[in-house]
Amino acid sequence: MEKFSPLVAALLCIAFAYGVNGYIKYNTGSGIIDGKLNVHLVPHSHDDVGWLKTVDQYHVGSNNSIQGACVENILDSVVMSLRRDPNRKFAFAEMAFFDRWWKRQNPEIQEDVRKLVDAGQLEFVNGGWCMHDEAATHYIDMIDQTTLGHQLIKNQFNKAPRAGWQIDPFGHSAVQAYLLGVELGFDSVHFARIDYQDRGKRQKDKSLEVIWRASRTFGSSSQIFANAFPVHYSPPNGFSFEVNNDFNPVQDDPLLFNFNVDVRVNDFISSAMIQANMTRTNHIMWTMGDDFQYQYAESWFKQMDKLIHYVNKDGRVNALYSTPSFYVDAKRAANESWPLKTDDYFPYAISANTYFTGFFTSRPSLKRYIRMLSGYYLAARQIEFLLGRRSAGPNTYSLSDALGIAQHHNAITGTSRLHTTSDYAKRLAIGASEAEITVSSALSCLIDSKSNAQCATPTMTFSQCQLLNISFCPPTEADIPKGKSLVVVAYNPLGWERIDFIRIPVNDHYLVVKDSTGKIIESQYIVLDNITSNMRRFYVEAYIGISPEEAPKYWLFFQVSVPPLGWNTYFISKASQKGNSRSVYVPMLDPPKKKIIEIGPGNLKLSFSSASGELERMFNSKSGIDMPVQQSYLWYASSEESESSDAYHFRPNGSTPQVVLRSVPLKVTRGPLVHEVHQQFDSWIYQITRIYKDREHAEVEFTIGPIPTENTVGKEIITRMTTSMSTKKAFYTDSNARDFLKRVRDYRSGWNLTVTQPVAGNYYPINLGIFIADNKSELSVLVDRATGGSSINDGEIELMLHRRIIKDDTGGLVEPLDELVCVNSTCEGLMIRGNYYMSINERGTGSRWRRKTGQEIYSPLLLAFSHESAENWISSHLTKATAMDPNYSLPLNVALITLQELVDGNVLLRLAHLYEASEDEKYSSLAKVELKKMFTGKTIKALKETSLSANQDKSEMKRMTWEVEGQNGNDPDPIRGGPMDMSTLIVELGPMEIRTFLLRF
Amino acid sequence: MEKFSPLVAALLCIAFAYGVNGYIKYNTGSGIIDGKLNVHLVPHSHDDVGWLKTVDQYHVGSNNSIQGACVENILDSVVMSLRRDPNRKFAFAEMAFFDRWWKRQNPEIQEDVRKLVDAGQLEFVNGGWCMHDEAATHYIDMIDQTTLGHQLIKNQFNKAPRAGWQIDPFGHSAVQAYLLGVELGFDSVHFARIDYQDRGKRQKDKSLEVIWRASRTFGSSSQIFANAFPVHYSPPNGFSFEVNNDFNPVQDDPLLFNFNVDVRVNDFISSAMIQANMTRTNHIMWTMGDDFQYQYAESWFKQMDKLIHYVNKDGRVNALYSTPSFYVDAKRAANESWPLKTDDYFPYAISANTYFTGFFTSRPSLKRYIRMLSGYYLAARQIEFLLGRRSAGPNTYSLSDALGIAQHHNAITGTSRLHTTSDYAKRLAIGASEAEITVSSALSCLIDSKSNAQCATPTMTFSQCQLLNISFCPPTEADIPKGKSLVVVAYNPLGWERIDFIRIPVNDHYLVVKDSTGKIIESQYIVLDNITSNMRRFYVEAYIGISPEEAPKYWLFFQVSVPPLGWNTYFISKASQKGNSRSVYVPMLDPPKKKIIEIGPGNLKLSFSSASGELERMFNSKSGIDMPVQQSYLWYASSEESESSDAYHFRPNGSTPQVVLRSVPLKVTRGPLVHEVHQQFDSWIYQITRIYKDREHAEVEFTIGPIPTENTVGKEIITRMTTSMSTKKAFYTDSNARDFLKRVRDYRSGWNLTVTQPVAGNYYPINLGIFIADNKSELSVLVDRATGGSSINDGEIELMLHRRIIKDDTGGLVEPLDELVCVNSTCEGLMIRGNYYMSINERGTGSRWRRKTGQEIYSPLLLAFSHESAENWISSHLTKATAMDPNYSLPLNVALITLQELVDGNVLLRLAHLYEASEDEKYSSLAKVELKKMFTGKTIKALKETSLSANQDKSEMKRMTWEVEGQNGNDPDPIRGGPMDMSTLIVELGPMEIRTFLLRF
Repeated sequence: MEKFSPLVAALLCIAFAYGVNGYIKYNTGSGIIDGKLNVHLVPHSHDDVGWLKTVDQYHVGSNNSIQGACVENILDSVVMSLRRDPNRKFAFAEMAFFDRWWKRQNPEIQEDVRKLVDAGQLEFVNGGWCMHDEAATHYIDMIDQTTLGHQLIKNQFNKAPRAGWQIDPFGHSAVQAYLLGVELGFDSVHFARIDYQDRGKRQKDKSLEVIWRASRTFGSSSQIFANAFPVHYSPPNGFSFEVNNDFNPVQDDPLLFNFNVDVRVNDFISSAMIQANMTRTNHIMWTMGDDFQYQYAESWFKQMDKLIHYVNKDGRVNALYSTPSFYVDAKRAANESWPLKTDDYFPYAISANTYFTGFFTSRPSLKRYIRMLSGYYLAARQIEFLLGRRSAGPNTYSLSDALGIAQHHNAITGTSRLHTTSDYAKRLAIGASEAEITVSSALSCLIDSKSNAQCATPTMTFSQCQLLNISFCPPTEADIPKGKSLVVVAYNPLGWERIDFIRIPVNDHYLVVKDSTGKIIESQYIVLDNITSNMRRFYVEAYIGISPEEAPKYWLFFQVSVPPLGWNTYFISKASQKGNSRSVYVPMLDPPKKKIIEIGPGNLKLSFSSASGELERMFNSKSGIDMPVQQSYLWYASSEESESSDAYHFRPNGSTPQVVLRSVPLKVTRGPLVHEVHQQFDSWIYQITRIYKDREHAEVEFTIGPIPTENTVGKEIITRMTTSMSTKKAFYTDSNARDFLKRVRDYRSGWNLTVTQPVAGNYYPINLGIFIADNKSELSVLVDRATGGSSINDGEIELMLHRRIIKDDTGGLVEPLDELVCVNSTCEGLMIRGNYYMSINERGTGSRWRRKTGQEIYSPLLLAFSHESAENWISSHLTKATAMDPNYSLPLNVALITLQELVDGNVLLRLAHLYEASEDEKYSSLAKVELKKMFTGKTIKALKETSLSANQDKSEMKRMTWEVEGQNGNDPDPIRGGPMDMSTLIVELGPMEIRTFLLRF
Repeated sequence: MEKFSPLVAALLCIAFAYGVNGYIKYNTGSGIIDGKLNVHLVPHSHDDVGWLKTVDQYHVGSNNSIQGACVENILDSVVMSLRRDPNRKFAFAEMAFFDRWWKRQNPEIQEDVRKLVDAGQLEFVNGGWCMHDEAATHYIDMIDQTTLGHQLIKNQFNKAPRAGWQIDPFGHSAVQAYLLGVELGFDSVHFARIDYQDRGKRQKDKSLEVIWRASRTFGSSSQIFANAFPVHYSPPNGFSFEVNNDFNPVQDDPLLFNFNVDVRVNDFISSAMIQANMTRTNHIMWTMGDDFQYQYAESWFKQMDKLIHYVNKDGRVNALYSTPSFYVDAKRAANESWPLKTDDYFPYAISANTYFTGFFTSRPSLKRYIRMLSGYYLAARQIEFLLGRRSAGPNTYSLSDALGIAQHHNAITGTSRLHTTSDYAKRLAIGASEAEITVSSALSCLIDSKSNAQCATPTMTFSQCQLLNISFCPPTEADIPKGKSLVVVAYNPLGWERIDFIRIPVNDHYLVVKDSTGKIIESQYIVLDNITSNMRRFYVEAYIGISPEEAPKYWLFFQVSVPPLGWNTYFISKASQKGNSRSVYVPMLDPPKKKIIEIGPGNLKLSFSSASGELERMFNSKSGIDMPVQQSYLWYASSEESESSDAYHFRPNGSTPQVVLRSVPLKVTRGPLVHEVHQQFDSWIYQITRIYKDREHAEVEFTIGPIPTENTVGKEIITRMTTSMSTKKAFYTDSNARDFLKRVRDYRSGWNLTVTQPVAGNYYPINLGIFIADNKSELSVLVDRATGGSSINDGEIELMLHRRIIKDDTGGLVEPLDELVCVNSTCEGLMIRGNYYMSINERGTGSRWRRKTGQEIYSPLLLAFSHESAENWISSHLTKATAMDPNYSLPLNVALITLQELVDGNVLLRLAHLYEASEDEKYSSLAKVELKKMFTGKTIKALKETSLSANQDKSEMKRMTWEVEGQNGNDPDPIRGGPMDMSTLIVELGPMEIRTFLLRF
């Protein structure tokens, strides 16, 4: 028996009296009180669009043995709880989930939700399809996925989110702040994850909340209030109220034991005071939620109701329900002046050895697949628009949905479980299939010169070959029937004409290639290498489930020219006589007598040592740049410590990677269109260095894997270029493939960095490219997907291309980053194939190459194949066309990044200036686009400029003003395009400007 | 990347179309369909009123680290869910929780709940304060706790529950079925736990559902439909839908992956068919719930909605929301004939070695405390009634609440964690404190002859001594002030006059005891033994937190006589001269020359061997019964196997217990009022055998503990009486202290028992007593609390008195049954003290002793102490009084089991016939109670007979009729009292009848 005091007994005697009515109406509506510390309780749930489980599993709550999480429960119960008290609020971010839920609700619930949104009780924050990653994402994908969510919000609720809510991504980018923030009309962005050293300093000097000017080009004209949370996006300790979790509930029933109102009120105030001591103004935010919390929302709201009621009764501080935007309004109203933050929040570490820089590269094949489909999606929407969007049947929506989901910060990052990763890939594949049907059908109609209405059943079907890079393309491999040609339609999604090379696998070397006028053009064969044919055998079956025919014998190359926003057609047919065979190039060793082996059909030459096989020098005869360069493959052994490398983290076992092979034999081929050097660095690393005619860069195709796993916990494979340039610790990496940021090794601009991980702590995300420079020259490398990279020593560039780690992840996945590809029961470690592109330039001129080539890499030609009689084709089809005025093309500093017909018939147009201020002497200037010439065949009936996500009129967007501490006068005065002249329809764009329009034709 | 089929892709392409409205209104309202298998989904949550956590912790959801459970969430969310669909239903049982919740609801929610109850959506099942245990509970406690809940339901909802819902108790009693079933107006009782062998047979022959005639006396006139579940009270595997748990949700959104409606419908039908194959009629019940499930009710209802919708669309079976009563109506309507079940469902085992027979004894001190306060509560309510219930200030409600909670099947059973057990004890202590104040105050007024209105402030305060059994009673121990006496008021709650003995600790042996007329009466002193004084020192501090004064020196005995429903007063004062001292008896060894030591001041003599100290013989000179009897203490070592003894289970390590000591010295004392034999069996077992003057039974006081724990996992202590009687495996134990059931060793009436545990499998619960008989005589033993017992060999009786097990429980508690009592930081194993009572009788006459003595044990005199001048007291107070006509008393075969003024002013009266049919030649007959004489000072203005829980008029109770398979003609024709004659107000009671009335005075 426990002891009890007579006092307790007496209290209880009174309390136990039968029939007491103990109903308490909690007063939750105090609002803000000036002069008191206001504790903004911001209820939210962080719902990963796939992670340990797939997005659908999270949504419906299946697979709960992995994680108890069901987003349906969250939305169902939050809505119920919000309806119970008009003061309650909730912030929701992930529209991929909301969309799934919303479609299944009955009209009454939908009406309730509309009221809750109107009343500000339910606030959409971020409002994108997912909470996208900021390191491995391309800015066009970020825009697209955000637009997808914002359009839903606009269509269903006529609202525009006001707060960025990037609470979980592992570091924060400049582009996020100024583009996916300010340009969306956001007043603020909120996040939890910044470097632990940075956080420590900011806690001390109350600089967690800042005004962030992330763009060198725009400066203060594109600033945002950025709130880095003091600890995490969960509540202070002891204030998490998830159903069934262990917490100390507010027990305010005097009839029950352990009445604890005073205790809990004191706990609350203590926690509030701690946070108040690191926060400016009388307003602090408590993030009342966590991953997949609010499974039963009332469990949270019941506790918060009581806390607000009793804390405010106590009176020492003021507690209230709030939302991110409401909180920011209060911060603004306080008229405080705020610290300034420039650049970005990369890299991110939570402690000395846990740098989140592994995920810049993790799952490189998923990263490539997303990037490839991102470009395809851009082109597919153009083609869909050119014909006119169909109201029924296949369209590009499922690809947009899959790409939207794939931008999630556990998707493209590679930080989800393998089965979830497969789910992302499956969604992309399904989306791509539907988009391919759409493209094939629309191209057929366009080429037939038929309008949408005339073209119910397309007369032709085009194959498109997603597995072209591993030499799988049935229509090109097939024997060409007598009297027919292999018809190749090449669509160019760029705004300017394009000279490019097509490379397709064929089985015949007696082929001729003709252009759209029937004129034979030059072509070149190269024998298919064994690495590719072996890879093809395994991977084709792994991808499509069908064992492929024998590998084709050759690669056929030819050069094409395609007009902007248009297509051209090429015909490949059997030569009439065998004698007409073209020569076939077989890569082979150059005669060993030469010490130096040089390749390059044009200005650019690459020299290799004949003895070691190593690259020694790049030389551009036009610019005169002559640069000694070595290139090699190396690997970091993952640390065997407990805080090891995993899908998230990079922690090498020491700072010196192991070289794969110093001396590697090379095979060379030199044809009229392309020169190639083939090098086998090891059984699992193969490289082809390729220089096309008329091109001033080298394209390096790497094939890596399966990474052997003997002797190490993990291997993280890099390629490294070494020059003698004096780069003074500096290098430049892009922010989401848009701005280039200067990085300085072992240095952060915000604080005195303590270097704990000399390699991992200097890694940055790369989406477009990386370059180094000295007084004279620049070495630039562009990538084909998100990649981690750095410059660990002066004059060096390294890219991490692949990773395989055997040890279980301790960062959350509880699964090693050990990607296996299986055919039937045979599983192998993942092989990847990709490209990077190298260029040497005079100091200050590299950007022209980077910007234009970057755009071409992102938006390759879309190829469609068919078999027809060339003569018939030429006579009855449009073989070459452009949507633009034939004499017009976009200026080279402007890219068309969106052209899409929306469901409501509006056409979404986005134009992006490609250069930063002062980046290029010529191109960093005001550019003009003539819409009338761009859409020459159509009449623009209406046009309005909108926010980046097209969810509000540009003219109606409001901007908060903020005072910045010690503001200096060096703020740039950015060039911006003027307002549209509705008669000329000329769009002006200043450097880095992206302008978004809704058009009616 | 996962493979996906083109079909899936095509399906998804269509499905992904933007803007599809996917709302589905689930059709959940099919009702019953004749000719189909009807699957009754009965949503419920099993909410233990304390177990791993305390009742309040479960209610508010604190201490969730032990178990995630919050009953507030259950009730909140169930109400929300029921409101969303009028077809949804829910059954709720535990009113202790409902009461906590209900009081805190706002009027709107209360109104909603009333509508749900009226509409049959929310059905109260059982409706008691808790789901009481059926093994260790006294029938009066069962009635009281049920009444507490039923009154709430009646007052708030004007409803009477129709179904018994004893799903979790560990075996099921006869009294439960016929008394706490039929007499409450229940049509059915439902439960999960019956012996595994029994269940196996019943599954095979479809006899899980039976008509249960549990009363030998009443036979078919008191039968009930009893539904033993096929497996457990959880749903079939795969159909549990608790939030965050792992289950396979019905995924019916074609836009999402893993659409599984067909799979889940097939699963459902398979599970239904399995159950249909063991169930009669076209109706099966699925118990859709489990322990503390429905934390977020919508998680369950959402799945059930879908299952009902799609299963009924499929059409092979019919699924519907149901409740226990709705289900039973359907069973009745099927006109099936049912197997007959008599007797009870004890003992219960879930497998060969897991007999739930340990809990009959577990935590014997809690069991005793509950039983003691149960008797006190009965008396206190009488006294409260006699004065008139006060509308404000202390009353007996908190004791009724605490006792109600304590009947829970993890409370009185001893199967809750230690901290929860302490919580029960604390509640009881608080309730008892408040009841003591009520009693003291009411007694003061009554003795002052003041009415309630005249007696705002009582003039006297009476001490009552709860720790009298360990010699702690400050008013009797204290020095009596000059001119004053120690006034002892003895209140008799029985309906007949009582001659009894009072035994109080005193420090003075120069005391005289006078009766209420001032006449000196005989008294006797016995020196206090060391065991008691040591126990007192430790336990008084453990109980009340205060180190007590030195132990008193003597026990003072005197005999009293108290009228029915009344009191008498005794005065103890210092003798005027020291010379008047009475002799003090010191127990000591009898002269060793005698071979046999005999005690007993009257007809009953007990003979002990002087050599061994062992009891050898009992002899009653009046009846002539002369019985050789040995009595000893033994212990079973708990098994060391994995399925070991624990709080629930009894599994000895072999069937032969170890004798504590064969030869034990004895000390004897023989005075004018009492003879005592003291025996120390070991350092931790002390026994006093006591025979009072004029009594024909021996009272055995045992003090056991701390049980040593060396060398064994656990020790389970028994006392065993061995005779030479030829009992042919038979013995008799009571059902909840009411009916006696014949038990046959190694035998069950329902099936061929496979004996796996020859000891544990023959244990039965004892609340009143156990007896054995042969042709000539009976040996009866009555107990002071719930106890396990058996007759393991012919002629033997054994009682398990105490248990201590060191090994962790594997049955759910995850805590050993190792009770420690602590003072400051010193902890000792629990010591217990108690009594059992032995009598020998001629065959067929034992019941008179058992029934009357049993009533006296249950309802001891209530003693109240004060210090006053005896002369003043006598002259100005009522020293002796009865509420009845002074010439009237209840017949000896009728007990007054409830007399209580309710909050609404009605008076609740229950009278119980104490004998079964044919139990006693004389007393098993119609008895009459004259209410006018019983309440002689008051006028009965109104009277109505009600159901047992007073929640409905007796005349309006309906009874279902059921056909019983192979019904034989031997059904008894019970004697029952006729209807009340409202003029004579004479109540007739047939054997075992309990009649309940609401009176207005």
